[in-house]
Amino acid sequence: MLEHCYALTGVGLRAVAERAVCVVGTGLIGGSLLRAAEKAGREVWGTSASEPTAAAARADGFAVTTDLDAALHRAAAADALVVLAVPLPAVPDVLRRIDAVAPVIRLTDAVSVKVAVAGAVARHAPRARYVGGHPMAGTAESGWAAGNASLFNGAAWVVAADDGLDLEVWADVAELAWACGAHVVPAAADEHDLAVARISHLPHLLAAVLAAVGAGRPGGDLPLALAASSFADGTRVAGTRPELVLAMCEGNRDALLAAVDDALGRLGAMRGSLASTGGLAATVQAGFAARQRWAAARRPSATRVRLDRPGALAELRELGRRGDVVVGWAT
Amino acid sequence: MLEHCYALTGVGLRAVAERAVCVVGTGLIGGSLLRAAEKAGREVWGTSASEPTAAAARADGFAVTTDLDAALHRAAAADALVVLAVPLPAVPDVLRRIDAVAPVIRLTDAVSVKVAVAGAVARHAPRARYVGGHPMAGTAESGWAAGNASLFNGAAWVVAADDGLDLEVWADVAELAWACGAHVVPAAADEHDLAVARISHLPHLLAAVLAAVGAGRPGGDLPLALAASSFADGTRVAGTRPELVLAMCEGNRDALLAAVDDALGRLGAMRGSLASTGGLAATVQAGFAARQRWAAARRPSATRVRLDRPGALAELRELGRRGDVVVGWAT
Repeated sequence: MLEHCYALTGVGLRAVAERAVCVVGTGLIGGSLLRAAEKAGREVWGTSASEPTAAAARADGFAVTTDLDAALHRAAAADALVVLAVPLPAVPDVLRRIDAVAPVIRLTDAVSVKVAVAGAVARHAPRARYVGGHPMAGTAESGWAAGNASLFNGAAWVVAADDGLDLEVWADVAELAWACGAHVVPAAADEHDLAVARISHLPHLLAAVLAAVGAGRPGGDLPLALAASSFADGTRVAGTRPELVLAMCEGNRDALLAAVDDALGRLGAMRGSLASTGGLAATVQAGFAARQRWAAARRPSATRVRLDRPGALAELRELGRRGDVVVGWAT
Repeated sequence: MLEHCYALTGVGLRAVAERAVCVVGTGLIGGSLLRAAEKAGREVWGTSASEPTAAAARADGFAVTTDLDAALHRAAAADALVVLAVPLPAVPDVLRRIDAVAPVIRLTDAVSVKVAVAGAVARHAPRARYVGGHPMAGTAESGWAAGNASLFNGAAWVVAADDGLDLEVWADVAELAWACGAHVVPAAADEHDLAVARISHLPHLLAAVLAAVGAGRPGGDLPLALAASSFADGTRVAGTRPELVLAMCEGNRDALLAAVDDALGRLGAMRGSLASTGGLAATVQAGFAARQRWAAARRPSATRVRLDRPGALAELRELGRRGDVVVGWAT
């Protein structure tokens, strides 16, 4: 593994697989990442804006401080990988500290949108060696206490693969994902955002709408009393803390509008058919076929790749578009 | 229990709790009902239009025949409760046989819409002593082999409570529901249909739309590869056999149109807000509140009722509108 890393990156005295990790934000995702990376043998430390959170993490044996600058100084000294795991609205402030304290740091993130974060990096920390990331894991829970080292086991971890990025840092982020038990899905930042608008953000909005319709007053509480598994499943994510859903969805406005318009178009066509002929076959059969196709897509090809040749990033993006995943380096 | 039944119905030499049950249609619901009623000590028999299904049921020790007329003759002789457990499109043919062979039979059903079945009974078997029913249970599976005696344990079983129905048969249907482990939710037929449009049929259509949007081609298979639990839950019922979904939803056209229009209105308002201010708080917070309210509604009051006084059915409908359930007879 170490040999491959050197071959890949071509430079660096520190083996990629051993790179230290500094996590900014120790909620569910950041806190799980800290635990998983530590379990994988990495040197890890973190920061939280909340002293009670930092204290809870320290009580669990992790070096977590509220002193962001100190954590970033240590990252610069150790040539560590810094992971932004704060909500999108908190990203610019952290980036300004990075630009002041550790401007050329290796940087990734765990935020659920990628174009907005890349834009913020370009504005506020343009010298950072940034490669976007998005571990696709989560629960309805949040906070340090909800985290666990196995959260990313078997999960998809998107690593942005836009042209021009730093291949060494790409390798760092991929190695971190694998160390945490995830597989890597390479994607262009904008294609990632369109994809998550369809399969993560739209589901949250449809769940909210379904919950509100089900709780509508005609019939009193009869609809809610009759609601069984189809309603329970269809509204589950409506139970997510609103501020988390808002940070995620509102940060992906343009892509989400396209997904919402697609859904509205399909619903409108269905409404027209139901009102005119009474038929719903087109909607129901398309949905059934799509669900079957998704079930098939659940078994991606696990691929090993190299970065040390021209066009490597374009190949990675194609691999992601096919629905395949990267699980290690090719020899 | 037997005493109460006599008090309730006022008539009848046969104790309600022991009434024999004839199930027409032995798929998932009918087959489970046959098993559950037999396990509760009832005399049970059934019919299937399919000889392989009937043979499979016989191999499991149940008296199931393809001879519908013979089963109905036996029901008339035994003063049994006949349960229609066939899909809505097959209901009229069965009703014509009932009108020919056992015209004044005690009759209920397990079809997922109630106004359409009541209309069909009025047209094709107007002398039948009909009280609509709808056990709210099911799985993605179907057919005799998928059935089991515990399918209705803890489930809501709607029993139509419109004015003018036969109170004796109402008691028969309630007793059957309790014998199968379910609790009774009384409801007017039209209010039932509006409720299930919102909490069962609309979820199936939104799941189909979400699945189709997720499988849309922009980004190739990347969206499907990234789809995690929010997409999996939101599209689960899109995997239901299309013909079952169509029979259910298309049979509830008017109520479903109202639910779809409610959803379209909410989605349209959300789209407007996202496009103009970028804000989604109204949608997300309403959905969160509705989901919390549903979670609270999961704990209905378990009530005991009497039928032997004026206005009993109106009281039952009010009870259902409050989201409460009936679990037995009051003394």
